[in-house]
Amino acid sequence: MSRVRSSLIGSSVPKLDAAKRVIGDARYMDDLTLPRMLHGKILRADRPSARILGIDTSRAEVMEGVRAVITAADIPNHSFGHGRDNTPLKGEVVRCIRDEIAAVAADTPEQAEAACRRIEVKYGDLPPILTTDAARASGARAIHGDHPENVALTYHYDHGEVEQGRRASAHVVESTFHLRYVTHCCLGVSGVVASFDGEGKLTIWSQTQVPFLYRRDLAAIVGLDPRDIRVIQPFIGGAFGSKLDIYPFEPICVHLAQVTRRPVKILFSREEEFVASPTRQPAEIRCSMGCDADGNLTFREADLVLDNGGYTSWGATTPFVMMQTFSSLYRVPHVRFDAEVVYTNNPYAGSFRGYGNLQASFTVESLIDELADRVGMDPLELRLQNAQEQGEVTGQGMVISSCGFRECLEGSTTAARWKEKREEYRQQTGRVRRGIGMASMLHVGGGAKIYRSDGCGSILKLDDFGAVTLITGASEIGQGSETALAMITAEELGVKLEVVRVVNDDSEIRPWDVGVHASRTTFIAGNSARLAARAAREKLLKAAARLVERPEQELTIEDGEVLEQATGKHVMSVPKVIRSLHFQDKSELVVTNAYYEPPSVAQDEKFKGNVSATYAWATQVAEVEVDMDTGIIRVLKISAAHDVGRVINRLGCEGQVEGGIAMGMGYTLSEELLVQEGRVRNPCFRDYKIMTAPDMPEIELILVESLDEEGPFGAKGLGEAPAICTAPAIVNAVKSATGRRFTGLPITPERGAREFMKDAQ
Amino acid sequence: MSRVRSSLIGSSVPKLDAAKRVIGDARYMDDLTLPRMLHGKILRADRPSARILGIDTSRAEVMEGVRAVITAADIPNHSFGHGRDNTPLKGEVVRCIRDEIAAVAADTPEQAEAACRRIEVKYGDLPPILTTDAARASGARAIHGDHPENVALTYHYDHGEVEQGRRASAHVVESTFHLRYVTHCCLGVSGVVASFDGEGKLTIWSQTQVPFLYRRDLAAIVGLDPRDIRVIQPFIGGAFGSKLDIYPFEPICVHLAQVTRRPVKILFSREEEFVASPTRQPAEIRCSMGCDADGNLTFREADLVLDNGGYTSWGATTPFVMMQTFSSLYRVPHVRFDAEVVYTNNPYAGSFRGYGNLQASFTVESLIDELADRVGMDPLELRLQNAQEQGEVTGQGMVISSCGFRECLEGSTTAARWKEKREEYRQQTGRVRRGIGMASMLHVGGGAKIYRSDGCGSILKLDDFGAVTLITGASEIGQGSETALAMITAEELGVKLEVVRVVNDDSEIRPWDVGVHASRTTFIAGNSARLAARAAREKLLKAAARLVERPEQELTIEDGEVLEQATGKHVMSVPKVIRSLHFQDKSELVVTNAYYEPPSVAQDEKFKGNVSATYAWATQVAEVEVDMDTGIIRVLKISAAHDVGRVINRLGCEGQVEGGIAMGMGYTLSEELLVQEGRVRNPCFRDYKIMTAPDMPEIELILVESLDEEGPFGAKGLGEAPAICTAPAIVNAVKSATGRRFTGLPITPERGAREFMKDAQ
Repeated sequence: MSRVRSSLIGSSVPKLDAAKRVIGDARYMDDLTLPRMLHGKILRADRPSARILGIDTSRAEVMEGVRAVITAADIPNHSFGHGRDNTPLKGEVVRCIRDEIAAVAADTPEQAEAACRRIEVKYGDLPPILTTDAARASGARAIHGDHPENVALTYHYDHGEVEQGRRASAHVVESTFHLRYVTHCCLGVSGVVASFDGEGKLTIWSQTQVPFLYRRDLAAIVGLDPRDIRVIQPFIGGAFGSKLDIYPFEPICVHLAQVTRRPVKILFSREEEFVASPTRQPAEIRCSMGCDADGNLTFREADLVLDNGGYTSWGATTPFVMMQTFSSLYRVPHVRFDAEVVYTNNPYAGSFRGYGNLQASFTVESLIDELADRVGMDPLELRLQNAQEQGEVTGQGMVISSCGFRECLEGSTTAARWKEKREEYRQQTGRVRRGIGMASMLHVGGGAKIYRSDGCGSILKLDDFGAVTLITGASEIGQGSETALAMITAEELGVKLEVVRVVNDDSEIRPWDVGVHASRTTFIAGNSARLAARAAREKLLKAAARLVERPEQELTIEDGEVLEQATGKHVMSVPKVIRSLHFQDKSELVVTNAYYEPPSVAQDEKFKGNVSATYAWATQVAEVEVDMDTGIIRVLKISAAHDVGRVINRLGCEGQVEGGIAMGMGYTLSEELLVQEGRVRNPCFRDYKIMTAPDMPEIELILVESLDEEGPFGAKGLGEAPAICTAPAIVNAVKSATGRRFTGLPITPERGAREFMKDAQ
Repeated sequence: MSRVRSSLIGSSVPKLDAAKRVIGDARYMDDLTLPRMLHGKILRADRPSARILGIDTSRAEVMEGVRAVITAADIPNHSFGHGRDNTPLKGEVVRCIRDEIAAVAADTPEQAEAACRRIEVKYGDLPPILTTDAARASGARAIHGDHPENVALTYHYDHGEVEQGRRASAHVVESTFHLRYVTHCCLGVSGVVASFDGEGKLTIWSQTQVPFLYRRDLAAIVGLDPRDIRVIQPFIGGAFGSKLDIYPFEPICVHLAQVTRRPVKILFSREEEFVASPTRQPAEIRCSMGCDADGNLTFREADLVLDNGGYTSWGATTPFVMMQTFSSLYRVPHVRFDAEVVYTNNPYAGSFRGYGNLQASFTVESLIDELADRVGMDPLELRLQNAQEQGEVTGQGMVISSCGFRECLEGSTTAARWKEKREEYRQQTGRVRRGIGMASMLHVGGGAKIYRSDGCGSILKLDDFGAVTLITGASEIGQGSETALAMITAEELGVKLEVVRVVNDDSEIRPWDVGVHASRTTFIAGNSARLAARAAREKLLKAAARLVERPEQELTIEDGEVLEQATGKHVMSVPKVIRSLHFQDKSELVVTNAYYEPPSVAQDEKFKGNVSATYAWATQVAEVEVDMDTGIIRVLKISAAHDVGRVINRLGCEGQVEGGIAMGMGYTLSEELLVQEGRVRNPCFRDYKIMTAPDMPEIELILVESLDEEGPFGAKGLGEAPAICTAPAIVNAVKSATGRRFTGLPITPERGAREFMKDAQ
């Protein structure tokens, strides 16, 4: 009798926390309250560059409900951040509009806010440095004394000999691309609650994506032993990388709690969220690329200048990811990449979904299309010809262990009816024109070993009734990891999904994990959960075999039942096996744990090495309609093919791709944080335009299953990918519709119309 | 170089949660609130015996803020409890003053209370059965139809041949003892919060002492799968056994949450706590005992009648513990024990610290003194002569594996200057007389195998900074288990206490444990924690040995440092070892787990077998001053010697003993829940007198360390012991002062004066 076993893996499962979120049971930062809790507010500089000449808090201190007013002078104020160039409060110099000057804790948020307004600060304004050019001009004032050239970081990478590649080129294209500020627009604003217990141990309710690193870093800032910090992560309304760094409001909140000896909460207003939360790194990218007469890529050269703003966050390290795209998206024998991260008095960036790869892919994929034009090839053909295949090692040392690149290129274009549409839309005239364009991307798909360990721990507990608790190091930031990990656990154990609960919010209980970044959670935490589940499954099978006196190999577990492997005949229930272990003389529980460390390596000082256990590929094809008069670009359809290794939760994949495309479309067409004179001019959703449901096109999703050998059930990371190549796909489509190549984003109707008008003239 | 290693074990450590409790951070049931939470109140019968003829809730339902009114007809109302004779709501018959007739959920507690008052119930009153005699009288109405004789439970135990023992006796004493109602007087009143999530899974914030059994039993009552119930235990203001049972308010709360689809909280008023929480089992005990001419005990016979009240809780099984004292406190070759647990319309009892042993020890130790009188021996001598020693097996099969009985007898009397005082106080006259008396006890000290497993699970997690989390199945109910378990873990691992945190409040996270009862936690959960810590220690030592290339045996761990065993020289810190495991190629965390099942057995149907892994012994000597006119008995000093195996937390032991003595003194001198006509007449602390600080005598504590082989570091259970033999010690002292033997408790001044007046006449 042959049996087909139904699998959870690949099915569509709504997020396990969906009901909680919908019926109002989910407790976000906004909902948290503790006995005796105070509310903190921060007074910000509200000017981009100044000396602080004096701060008078006396009028604020005597106001009703005010429990503490602190300035830099009142706290240790240790420097922190990726560049150790930031402090919780600023005592001498203002470098950025959002700079934190003082903070108040009061009985109510309104009282704290009112007290902030009564703090008097004397400033000596300094002329702000507002562009990277101005910052690097000779004789420019040093924004940080220890960086006289105003250069925070530099990156150099190369492989091959670029000049040799240039000589071998039949065609060379070159252009400079300008990417501006966008911000994450998390629907839940930033916030934190800090509370000390009687022994001076701190519990912090944080939105961090990296609780274990956060704990270590926060400890250094506020002068505690990391051991004495417990990080609890409540429900979170979006992160997208914005919570990878610690920002000043967090240690400020801790200090307010320390000073007042009471719990303190700081919660941003929406305006504050726009002004004082991170942005995507603005970049100016000059890039040239060549190919031979047959369309084989010959070289790639890129020079990048990134506007760091006033302080250096993790976001300043995005060149690390950018260079992977320049070095390894398509086969390129000769590559040079140089990036400079430059201090200015603008707002400072943080990490943001895609982590530099949006800017990099926008550049590379725009130029690939230009190159195809020069050669006279279909852009799809040129891409296919240069696409990597399984088993290749890129110049940077990335080992392509599983590869659905070709399937992505072919799948997306087939779905989009690429050849047909391209023919149909060729050389349109008239006011409304349609076009089709494509772009691909490469991103880490099996973690990224940027810390000494890229692993994740899991503890698995089965109880007498077959309830399964997975205690995972991985954090849920809305990306659906809880659901994916529960599915992996249920599948590996052989139990129903509804018996699995995931615990993922308390550093005291969870084993270590490096955090949510680099699209790593399904892969790394999934493998960890799977190992723990496998150990439990083996224990159950062994026990069941002993009970029924049969060889283990003849048994299997499905849907919470031990079955005869060959026939599917019921043998006994899993809870019964568990109880038989528990209620015997040598009583045992079924509790297991595992730690998974991927087989990746840290890159060497030349940025070479296989930094991820596997890589993800994608191609998106955009079909657009352009109104040449109004400049309005309507995206009609995105055909998105993503190599996910193996689908774990189909619904989760769909959600990630749809969300990513919405974000990518916003980056392309509407989103811009307007920073003028160092100030944010549009700190509200009326003036900062994100994509909403009516803006969304038809999305056709092709999930390519390349079955990664190392991935859990073959899966690899998908989180960031969907946002990465939407912009170049749309921009290439606009070029195909209008003949106009945009090298800056966003293409708002105003900008679009201005350009199209030039053509008309 | 010889080194003396300082040990945590035996030191004095304040409870780890003390600061939280003191500064108001501890969140008790009263402090808990959930979004959208409603408040439930219960309408009680307020009469002991009636038929319910009709319930009209219509006027209550339309009141402001009322969200639901439920009666027995509205819910499944499954029967439950140890005797399966209780239901959440009563639909037909009232058997007890506290009977739950209807319940309301409303926006505020006041609205719910007001609505309860508007529910109209028609009763047909029945003559209440108020004594066990009336209940057993022929022709008495059956309180429960399926128990026509009104006998809920019977117990028979014997060993030897009692008649043979009687014949061998030179002296026989016999008396009947009367023990009345007392109640736990937890400073935190009873309460519960129930909340369903979107998938119909229940989270219940409960004060239960037995979360894992609770989950199973509650599931059956409310018709859920135990898998779908998560039990969270907030801070609790005392339990003392009162939370061993599920009481009707808990399933009622669940049903209110189910009906309203909102979280519901029920919190008792203080009056309700006195009326509707359990009591200690009232008992009438006829007992005779004999010895030969040399004072060797010959036999013991006891007949007990216990007033069960209207329903059968776990408390009804106290004869199970009582019989251990009758069978095995001192060497007695022939024993017969019979107990009957009889239904009445009085309030019903629950389990209460000591679990029957207060009543049993009061009886046995009163008669021992009488016997010594008859023989003409010093009561100490008679006790010493009949006291068990290590290696003996009692008639009931209890194996005395470690035994500090003799040390308890000698230690307490030495501290009390027994011989001297006894001489000094002999034959006093006058209004104010002093006396000295003693009593001993025997109680389980290594768990009690009354369920299929008596074990406890532990998970131990060490993090990169050396923070240690113990996730234990054991519950903290104020007894200090958190602290004792942290000490055991720290000691076994070799780390400082302050790095250890204990997680013990969430069934979803914790491994199984049978619950807090039978003074088992330090022994069972302590052994479990120790096993998990030992595994972690071994892993650390092995890793350290590998790192420094030395044999493991040459290294040890103390205070978080790996040391050279022989010299105490520092080798490396524990966090460094942990990180070396974590940040290596084959990355590992230090996470371990263990399950400890004691080597005890379930008793056979004749109640024989070694039910506990070890036994605890104690002797208390009371010195009293009696005012013969006012009847006021002042306790001057208690010298308490307790065999605790090994002291874990000295301060914890002191707290347990002092608290137990206060409770025992209340039982002896002041506490009585006045039940008249089935009603509680003194439901408040003004009229129900507990001991307070000024009432407390000097306490001299002798902690006897018999170093149990199976116990963690030699420790055994202490929780219940201190309350058990205080009453007979005081009563024996009163006898020595006044010549008057009291066989009933409490000896209030009124009762005392009445008796002493008789003597004066």
